[in-house]
Amino acid sequence: MSIVAVGSVAFDSIATPSGRVNDVLGGAATYFALAASYFTQVRVVAVVGDDFTAEHEAVLTKRKVDIRGIEHAKGKTFRWGGQYLDNLNEAKTEFTELNVFEKFQPQIPQEFMDSEFLFLANIHPTLQAAVRLEMKDVRLTGGDTMNFWISGTRPELLETLKLVNVLLINDNEVRMLSGEKSLPRGARKVLAMGPQALVVKHGEYGATIFFREGAFGVGSHPFRAPALPIEEVKDPTGAGDSFAGGFMGYIASQGEVNREVLKRALFYGGVMGSFAVEQFGTERLQSLTREEIEARFQVFRELTHLG
Amino acid sequence: MSIVAVGSVAFDSIATPSGRVNDVLGGAATYFALAASYFTQVRVVAVVGDDFTAEHEAVLTKRKVDIRGIEHAKGKTFRWGGQYLDNLNEAKTEFTELNVFEKFQPQIPQEFMDSEFLFLANIHPTLQAAVRLEMKDVRLTGGDTMNFWISGTRPELLETLKLVNVLLINDNEVRMLSGEKSLPRGARKVLAMGPQALVVKHGEYGATIFFREGAFGVGSHPFRAPALPIEEVKDPTGAGDSFAGGFMGYIASQGEVNREVLKRALFYGGVMGSFAVEQFGTERLQSLTREEIEARFQVFRELTHLG
Repeated sequence: MSIVAVGSVAFDSIATPSGRVNDVLGGAATYFALAASYFTQVRVVAVVGDDFTAEHEAVLTKRKVDIRGIEHAKGKTFRWGGQYLDNLNEAKTEFTELNVFEKFQPQIPQEFMDSEFLFLANIHPTLQAAVRLEMKDVRLTGGDTMNFWISGTRPELLETLKLVNVLLINDNEVRMLSGEKSLPRGARKVLAMGPQALVVKHGEYGATIFFREGAFGVGSHPFRAPALPIEEVKDPTGAGDSFAGGFMGYIASQGEVNREVLKRALFYGGVMGSFAVEQFGTERLQSLTREEIEARFQVFRELTHLG
Repeated sequence: MSIVAVGSVAFDSIATPSGRVNDVLGGAATYFALAASYFTQVRVVAVVGDDFTAEHEAVLTKRKVDIRGIEHAKGKTFRWGGQYLDNLNEAKTEFTELNVFEKFQPQIPQEFMDSEFLFLANIHPTLQAAVRLEMKDVRLTGGDTMNFWISGTRPELLETLKLVNVLLINDNEVRMLSGEKSLPRGARKVLAMGPQALVVKHGEYGATIFFREGAFGVGSHPFRAPALPIEEVKDPTGAGDSFAGGFMGYIASQGEVNREVLKRALFYGGVMGSFAVEQFGTERLQSLTREEIEARFQVFRELTHLG
């Protein structure tokens, strides 16, 4: 089964205590697509500029990502610069040049319309909603958002949340969206806004999935997956999108969407996030094998499971 | 098997978003002893003042805690006041009156000398070391410390760490003690200072245990246990000491100390910490049953274990 991922493709300039890179291929859709590509067919909808070359394209096509939904517009590709010199948990943005991304209007190729899974990366909630409504036959939609939309376009975001089955955001975003300091209370409020499940990403401490009563199974007990304690986080950029890629990719690779699948997906999300931060940019995500992924899944299991 | 716990008994005045209490029985040794008392015999070594009444004593003796090591000194018991109004994760101290605790010299009753387990709660590292050296036949010593001793009495603390088998501290304390931002690297440095295992407490995200290569079993793979997502944390005071009580109490209740026992102990630590924060002070820890504890252990298991 295939996933359509809609979001940004960008060139990132990143400084961390481990080094610095300039204009490396990044963006939410890129990280997501590479991470998910180890589990299922991924189709990307995005926009790039004249500076997006065959070499950049090959990063995606080598992983058999379908790029027919990547629009080539006149101008430069979205550029972002940031650093994590003081704090590996939060990027300090140095510049944002939206360029062709500023007028991004996602166009879903007709050939993508039979995809059963959809991931709406962090873009304007009105665009997210339009894509979801256009792809009316999808079985499961995952979505991301951020503080900028939560505070700046709240009414639009609330409409979008009614169309999203699984929302993936971090602790602070849950607090902002719900107005609650308590995570379980905040989660309940967010679930009342529409999603059947909420994945809260805790960075270096893993993630928790909360279920609406009865959604995907019985009861409403949450489930937690850890993150791997990593010696040297070289570059945290894209960890959350890679998490989403592992999570959604694993789900799409399974016949059924139930609690057990979603729990395992949470582990695979952590696995892909843990790989992403080991190298700068998408480097580590370009050259993985399914065996390495399964071996790390076992490490996660041993990290958490009693004998 | 029994545990000797050395540390503070105090009267706490606490304000949280859920309310306020004044002069309730607290202190590290109290929380530890109550939490551990559900698993094993606990013997407390501490000092109290004239204001420590039969009613306070009964809180401990009802849980069959051996209080023959509690010295009654002239003066007032240690008093602490703090609030968590802005941040449930970190207390803001409003006052500290050491009172009789200022000149605390732990005296181990002869009857306690046959205990196989020892817990050194957060007191001056020189006092911790003296107790450990006096109780020369203990099988396993757990210890706690804090930023105040890490920065103020570092040489003394380093001597004490050579005598501690399992150190239980939080993320920030690992960073301070090791000078490393990376948790796994920091953990390795702390383990090189003496302990065979290091438990890092992550507050609402649980805890990780790191092992020195080959200690208590094979290899050096860490293990993580979650904390329970709790709707309303009424009072976080004593959560870390209750965690230590569940952790050490479970270990002492087992015949053998191996990796699997330590992993389960990490879960029981989380279980006791989760109960502690549900009510103000030690209230919830006074009236638990072993059945409630086992039921919550199962909740922790379901929260983390794949099917």
